[in-house]
Amino acid sequence: MTGWVVAAGLGPGADALITPEVSDALAQASDVIGYIPYVARVAQRPGLTLHASDNRVELDRAAHALALAAQGKRVAVVSSGDPGVFAMASALFEAVEAGPEDWRDLDIRVLPGITAMLAAAARAGAPLGHDFCAINLSDNLKPWPLIERRLRLAAQADFAMAFYNPRSRSRPEGFGRALAILREECGENRLILFARAVSTPEETLSVVPLSRATADMADMRTMVIVGSSRTRLIERSGPPILYTPRSAA
Amino acid sequence: MTGWVVAAGLGPGADALITPEVSDALAQASDVIGYIPYVARVAQRPGLTLHASDNRVELDRAAHALALAAQGKRVAVVSSGDPGVFAMASALFEAVEAGPEDWRDLDIRVLPGITAMLAAAARAGAPLGHDFCAINLSDNLKPWPLIERRLRLAAQADFAMAFYNPRSRSRPEGFGRALAILREECGENRLILFARAVSTPEETLSVVPLSRATADMADMRTMVIVGSSRTRLIERSGPPILYTPRSAA
Repeated sequence: MTGWVVAAGLGPGADALITPEVSDALAQASDVIGYIPYVARVAQRPGLTLHASDNRVELDRAAHALALAAQGKRVAVVSSGDPGVFAMASALFEAVEAGPEDWRDLDIRVLPGITAMLAAAARAGAPLGHDFCAINLSDNLKPWPLIERRLRLAAQADFAMAFYNPRSRSRPEGFGRALAILREECGENRLILFARAVSTPEETLSVVPLSRATADMADMRTMVIVGSSRTRLIERSGPPILYTPRSAA
Repeated sequence: MTGWVVAAGLGPGADALITPEVSDALAQASDVIGYIPYVARVAQRPGLTLHASDNRVELDRAAHALALAAQGKRVAVVSSGDPGVFAMASALFEAVEAGPEDWRDLDIRVLPGITAMLAAAARAGAPLGHDFCAINLSDNLKPWPLIERRLRLAAQADFAMAFYNPRSRSRPEGFGRALAILREECGENRLILFARAVSTPEETLSVVPLSRATADMADMRTMVIVGSSRTRLIERSGPPILYTPRSAA
């Protein structure tokens, strides 16, 4: 029995941002499992079975991966970005805990990737160069009052904030509420970055003050970063640079 | 004039965690600039000048890189991890702002890398699988009361927390104070990970409850991650898995 499972991070989109560790694991895998658009990023080859599944079936997908590994398969569960940040690694471990005892002793590894907030930050400059937090704005798995509480405390701590899943078709109103809370806590002049489809041909970046931010500036492919009170813009002939200085005062 | 500057992230240590984008930039660079141990990770070759400098001269190093690029050099400023997370990218933009006007229009890019907290999280399981924050515990560039305030607010928000620079020879007492605050805010049973030299041959990982955490468990090569109230351990015959479920309740 030489089966294994890796949760592998494909990064934000460009092949040049996939680590050699992940590329090697994909080259050795017998099975690749994941959400349809992520599996589509893995090249088909003889001996490789691709299992693409729809969104919101993370636990089923994780259990499927573990069952295959228990049969001796070499399984890569793929996520965009980093599997440990609002992606498949936690779902995999939830399935381990809920599953048969022998799944615990499978060879399971998490292979990190370039997560969306760091790819977006790099393209804009360095808005996460000082203390920051990462919040999933989806209320699928947590109640809205907890999201609101975290937004207010993070603003009071003067963190820069990176928001994953800012807006989806099923809950279009949440992001607008988040923007209203941020305006209240951080003021109208606080800078906000909308970074869409980073590292792909469709990439767009936009930085505006909160006063000009509207909910429709984000969609499911957008990473949103709100600066701290210290975050600033360097104007120049090209796109401006958004960054947070290292010093707090 | 074809000069450029990239702030390139070398990841936590293993070559397999360096992105092809960064490897390509290093292959094209005429000059590599950085802190001594990071420059030592770049292979010497004909046509490449290595400029290794001591710690705590980030602004001088950044200005040097920009001045070389303005002369037409192809300059890679190297950081471990991700240059945008408590590393050289912010210093580079501080130097741009403070420097001559024509530096603003240089070709400057940030090339993301695998940052220490995500490498450490991946090795331990998925402790950052739900909302989290990243705090630099060094008080070189910010006053201790601000660090304390951020620790308390982050604990009240029930974020998992990743700590960079937990402890150095010049300020050995800060991390002990941070642990005392965390015990007060999060309780004695909250889980804490000490991940040292991740992805290198010297890697060690240790997870204990806060009641058993002591300041000497961290040094300058240690990444510290404190779980949220939901973070849990899966016991098994090998090292336990530390992870935070996706759901908040």
